[in-house]
Amino acid sequence: MSDPLAPVLERLDQDAALAVARLCDLLRIPSVSTDPAFKPDCRRAAEWLAAELSAIGFDAAVRETPGHPMVVGHSRAHPEGAPRLLYYGHYDVQPADPIELWESPPFEPVVIEAERGPRVVGRGAVDDKGQVMTWLEALRAWHAVHGSYPARITVLLEGEEESGSPSLNGFLEANREELAADVCLISDTGMWDIDTPAITTSLRGMVYSEVTLHGPSRDLHSGMYGGAVPNPINVLARLIAQLHDEQGRIQIPGFYDGIAEPSAERLAQWRELGFDESAFLAEVGLKTPAGEAGRSALERLWSRPTCDVNGIHGGYTGKGAKTVIPAHATAKISCRLVPGQDPKTVEAGIRRFFEERAPADCRVELTVHSASPAIEVPDRSPELTAALRGLDRVFDKTPVLIGCGGSIPVAGAIRRLLGFDSLLIGFGLEDDRVHSPNEKFELRCLHNGARAHAAILAELGKPST
Amino acid sequence: MSDPLAPVLERLDQDAALAVARLCDLLRIPSVSTDPAFKPDCRRAAEWLAAELSAIGFDAAVRETPGHPMVVGHSRAHPEGAPRLLYYGHYDVQPADPIELWESPPFEPVVIEAERGPRVVGRGAVDDKGQVMTWLEALRAWHAVHGSYPARITVLLEGEEESGSPSLNGFLEANREELAADVCLISDTGMWDIDTPAITTSLRGMVYSEVTLHGPSRDLHSGMYGGAVPNPINVLARLIAQLHDEQGRIQIPGFYDGIAEPSAERLAQWRELGFDESAFLAEVGLKTPAGEAGRSALERLWSRPTCDVNGIHGGYTGKGAKTVIPAHATAKISCRLVPGQDPKTVEAGIRRFFEERAPADCRVELTVHSASPAIEVPDRSPELTAALRGLDRVFDKTPVLIGCGGSIPVAGAIRRLLGFDSLLIGFGLEDDRVHSPNEKFELRCLHNGARAHAAILAELGKPST
Repeated sequence: MSDPLAPVLERLDQDAALAVARLCDLLRIPSVSTDPAFKPDCRRAAEWLAAELSAIGFDAAVRETPGHPMVVGHSRAHPEGAPRLLYYGHYDVQPADPIELWESPPFEPVVIEAERGPRVVGRGAVDDKGQVMTWLEALRAWHAVHGSYPARITVLLEGEEESGSPSLNGFLEANREELAADVCLISDTGMWDIDTPAITTSLRGMVYSEVTLHGPSRDLHSGMYGGAVPNPINVLARLIAQLHDEQGRIQIPGFYDGIAEPSAERLAQWRELGFDESAFLAEVGLKTPAGEAGRSALERLWSRPTCDVNGIHGGYTGKGAKTVIPAHATAKISCRLVPGQDPKTVEAGIRRFFEERAPADCRVELTVHSASPAIEVPDRSPELTAALRGLDRVFDKTPVLIGCGGSIPVAGAIRRLLGFDSLLIGFGLEDDRVHSPNEKFELRCLHNGARAHAAILAELGKPST
Repeated sequence: MSDPLAPVLERLDQDAALAVARLCDLLRIPSVSTDPAFKPDCRRAAEWLAAELSAIGFDAAVRETPGHPMVVGHSRAHPEGAPRLLYYGHYDVQPADPIELWESPPFEPVVIEAERGPRVVGRGAVDDKGQVMTWLEALRAWHAVHGSYPARITVLLEGEEESGSPSLNGFLEANREELAADVCLISDTGMWDIDTPAITTSLRGMVYSEVTLHGPSRDLHSGMYGGAVPNPINVLARLIAQLHDEQGRIQIPGFYDGIAEPSAERLAQWRELGFDESAFLAEVGLKTPAGEAGRSALERLWSRPTCDVNGIHGGYTGKGAKTVIPAHATAKISCRLVPGQDPKTVEAGIRRFFEERAPADCRVELTVHSASPAIEVPDRSPELTAALRGLDRVFDKTPVLIGCGGSIPVAGAIRRLLGFDSLLIGFGLEDDRVHSPNEKFELRCLHNGARAHAAILAELGKPST
């Protein structure tokens, strides 16, 4: 039997320019899930993807949820009893602001030449539309060449990943049978570098909360009241400052409970990667290592929890001066979690932290936007081994196993609710400006990602796996 | 010779309803000086006032400055060699935001009945349009009755008081001769209570600054960078928290240099006022005294400096969640100054505070919007005594001498640049919601203020003064 992969790779090479055009079509839909103004655009993105899937041999449909819709597709043609694969991705994107820092409009994607070849720039270029297109293009090419798939494939595309996935768990539970598979494939993580593919086996979780501190019953004139009443901005700043001690350790009660240190083997693996912290910092204009004392940068990023304020506002923020003591001030605070931490404990700790420390006459209002645990994927499994083999076929450099500072909560939800693991194989780079202005995706990564997914599909589809 | 005041007071009583209508006309002009969008409205307010002055016996004109115009008027008819009085007020107002908390549109004034009689509600109702109208109505009535004034009167109306008075000093210096007087009258302060008139003899100054803390060169994904880079919001919060120690003392270097404690006599006077701190706090929904330890509330408000954050913003402040580590974060910080503090020293101290404490890789950008020293007016002067006599004639309760937590920088500028003192005689009340939504002025205060100004004018106009 001839190698089914070779003609698929050939097809991907021939089809590369059209693949870029298709990605740009998707990027033009401003599917910002967190802002209700973009609700119709989210649906439009879902419909676009369902149509694409229908065109490449899937029974696909837009499926309602209490929030933005899901897209689910099932391959029509595949060998009976073949391995079952679930591909997960999300079609929603982060808000584009601060909009004034974009060099081209965020939802009018452009392809520009840069030091490593052409790249596409636009919101969602990599997170997650570009990454979704790596496996969607692989599926398209496979179907074009073979007219069928080597595995029983289900596709699940979500529209609320960037706003805490409120409908995901309910949807997984309600469709357990339909979404059943041997393994899930997710491309929402990064490569080690542009030449070295990676599978992410350790991911931080997150608790994202919003704290509003209420003081006086109305905004006050700072001349008439200043010095004699609590100022909610000053109080909030004082509480935020107390979140970390001098050594960078987080002071939320119970925060470190249950944390498992990474195994010696994993730490050794990470050391071998030869991470260049100076280059990592220089890329974002920094020079001096920051964070928890006594830990390497990769440890801090991959195996230690964090607490960052992602947004703060209170009082007068327009031009010029206004001498107001505001009635309240608000901060958005996210904690990245590592294996062993219970999101419920962290959530309760955050509440206790603010309520216990708020001074008299200051009321704390706390909302939790999302909460998900960290994830560790087994270092050795038949699927992981097959995926590594696939990556090895299309890249010159040997694939590596890495951690990731970000969260892919869906992988935890799939393990918990559907009962199988995920393979996190992404093609983003560190400088892709995920969640920032001028987000981009290297076309080399898009293309190599599609080739890699074809090779992984070939490996996972083999009956022996 | 018959009492010239009696018919003027009678006229004011007859004219009271029209006085309210005139104030409402002025309140309808949204003369917000800090926001460039309202520039034409500021000019419109100046023109309105110049026309009013022209109608009551003044040579008045709108006068250009680098910013919003001034209005200057000189009385045409008065005895030769009569005392010279300068009336100062400002026609600009604070921004109306947060607009959603207004119960009626801020620039559509309404008169509503409340527990102490009718009140007018609108931005500028008391600060300073309503207060300006107290003396303008007194002048109007005097002119209507007598056809001339008992003093040589100059009126100066500013349009930039709420945005730091950038053009004031230059204007005073350029027009020293024209603005020369024996004393200045300013109504921009408060009564002790609705029945008890007050002259303010101690006022805090202010340094208003804006601090931006710059960290990474662009917004970062908190998952990919969190824990390994400095977060400008967390850093800014930490620095703000350090502004005060546990006892509420301000940690800016040199901040307390040169401060003179109030005299024993003044402190005794303040004690006699019987200030009710519980009621003061209850009015704004608070219960627990806050601020510098070991000081009474009136001491904290009238004789101690403060440091308040009036606005803060950074990162994502829209709805929902965005996991960003922002490139920068900004706070507007005002310090209220007391007699003895040098604004230049405080400004330099603020700069040093932030620059010395900012961690590696964080750059501090500091802008100072305004800086003015505190003011103490002599407790006994012929003009003060005459004004107290005037107040005594029209109020049942004996007038008191008080301090004020706010700033009236113009009084300092007039002392320094024109060489004479100011009498700060205002008719606002503590619950007038100055700078807040639903700002109001009791019509009783408007009317009694006009009667008081007529009586003070009669006293100050007596040749014996």
